[in-house]
Amino acid sequence: MPPILSPGTTVALIAPSGPVASEKHSLALENLRGLGLQVKEGRHWQGERGFFSGTDEERLEDLNAAIRDPEVRLIVCARGGYGAMRLLDGIDWEAWRLDPKPILGYSDITALHCAGFAKFGIKGWHGAIPAGKWSDFERASLEAALFGEARYDLFASGNRAPSSTLASSNEVARAREGHSVKGTLLGGNLCMVASLCGTAYLPNFEGSILLLEDVGEYPYRIDRFLVQLELAGVFSELKAILVGKFEGCGSAKGDETLPSVEDVLRERLDRLPVPVIRDVDFGHLPEKFTWPFGGEVELVLREIPELWYSRG
Amino acid sequence: MPPILSPGTTVALIAPSGPVASEKHSLALENLRGLGLQVKEGRHWQGERGFFSGTDEERLEDLNAAIRDPEVRLIVCARGGYGAMRLLDGIDWEAWRLDPKPILGYSDITALHCAGFAKFGIKGWHGAIPAGKWSDFERASLEAALFGEARYDLFASGNRAPSSTLASSNEVARAREGHSVKGTLLGGNLCMVASLCGTAYLPNFEGSILLLEDVGEYPYRIDRFLVQLELAGVFSELKAILVGKFEGCGSAKGDETLPSVEDVLRERLDRLPVPVIRDVDFGHLPEKFTWPFGGEVELVLREIPELWYSRG
Repeated sequence: MPPILSPGTTVALIAPSGPVASEKHSLALENLRGLGLQVKEGRHWQGERGFFSGTDEERLEDLNAAIRDPEVRLIVCARGGYGAMRLLDGIDWEAWRLDPKPILGYSDITALHCAGFAKFGIKGWHGAIPAGKWSDFERASLEAALFGEARYDLFASGNRAPSSTLASSNEVARAREGHSVKGTLLGGNLCMVASLCGTAYLPNFEGSILLLEDVGEYPYRIDRFLVQLELAGVFSELKAILVGKFEGCGSAKGDETLPSVEDVLRERLDRLPVPVIRDVDFGHLPEKFTWPFGGEVELVLREIPELWYSRG
Repeated sequence: MPPILSPGTTVALIAPSGPVASEKHSLALENLRGLGLQVKEGRHWQGERGFFSGTDEERLEDLNAAIRDPEVRLIVCARGGYGAMRLLDGIDWEAWRLDPKPILGYSDITALHCAGFAKFGIKGWHGAIPAGKWSDFERASLEAALFGEARYDLFASGNRAPSSTLASSNEVARAREGHSVKGTLLGGNLCMVASLCGTAYLPNFEGSILLLEDVGEYPYRIDRFLVQLELAGVFSELKAILVGKFEGCGSAKGDETLPSVEDVLRERLDRLPVPVIRDVDFGHLPEKFTWPFGGEVELVLREIPELWYSRG
């Protein structure tokens, strides 16, 4: 994993996807400075241009400046939205390969996480975004991630008790109760992972533990994403799947008799020959835990599973 | 292209995607019989099971039975919806390769069209679905397709005058005015083409003329599909793009200041180094023209373009 940072470290603040609401600009800066970080602001992160914070060229300018700046040890994305995948072909990949600094973000930022890992095994942080009020839980989780804890249980950390519904939820997991599987933690936003299929920016998922979450997609769209991943071979070499939250993924009005997103997830995932852990506290939640994207983790299959993350 | 049919030919009627409303069952049969066709009904085409007309196994049973039956010379899909891509791994590909009969349908059926062409160059018909009232235009277009006209202008046929907005719409097309380009007509529903990226069922689009349409997707989703196709290399070897209708692809409520679907299509497509013809009468329209999926066509770039289709 990326080196452990210390207070005083310089980070870049950019907005590679959607525009950041102006009332959250100072909050984003305060959040980061409150961690003791020095913030270098991208030139365009406070902009607004259609769906995005700026043109593709403007957002790329900020992203590539952050990648090329040797002082910057972490690239913080102010928020998600849509648009990061439009930047992929314009990233200064050679500079990023030479200085594989992590990106922090989630949702649409899954495109950058996956692309960096697919190209050069670049690891990142999937979690709290600064353009929002942080709870103590979020801040503690981000501090543990950035400033270092040698080894901790991702399911139980942050002083939050794991949800009782975390129990291993498919037959494979129950059959392997007590066993542990190791793998690379990958994935994130399901829609973005599906949207990278067929491109050079989809990681090889062999031997990985896959996190999946989404927001605002009807159940049949979730099904379509999962079928695409299946047909693209993403599920064939996995070690385990961690199913996060699917917020606002209910049926369309009048379609309440149709399968729910829970039905869809159960049907498509539980038949796979790998452990599936459902209802993990991951996704578009008010309080976001910071996950090590690309980190090596160990999943212990118990009634209340454990997910251990260690770094040297 | 597939052999020209004659009245009296046997066709199969199946529903590989969504359920067919019961009040349209007899209409579907009447439409086909009205063309003089003999109809073999799939066992499950009138069913309803969640999003689909039946389980995957039931829908596959009907599709594979139609593929394997030597009497069946055309497979008619009663409607689209969602679900055809779930069947792809279960298709009796060896039987279909040996008897590459065409499928008629559109929208979700793009998954079957693309898959058949990707696997074994199987051609099909993209057009009218029988579970709906046909206008004279639709019926005439389907008759011309199935029963044969040696050579006709796809843009001008069916006694419908081409739309004035058919004028070549990007600089490349205008610069090449008077020239013609030949290619294989592929594509269909944009979402389904994007959803096949990364799978074994996406055709090689080199040298093709790509039709694109969609329905009920917000502009940013249309953008996402197009970016995926671009990153997957679909646009790199095309001969031309025909942009159909994007029905119900307006902005979300409150987002009317954001780019429209027309803005998105213009931005992403007009910069490509191939002719782009916009506003083609193709897509989720009340009156559907029947297009030869996989057919060889010749696009003549004029103020009112022509799209010639010939078969021997």
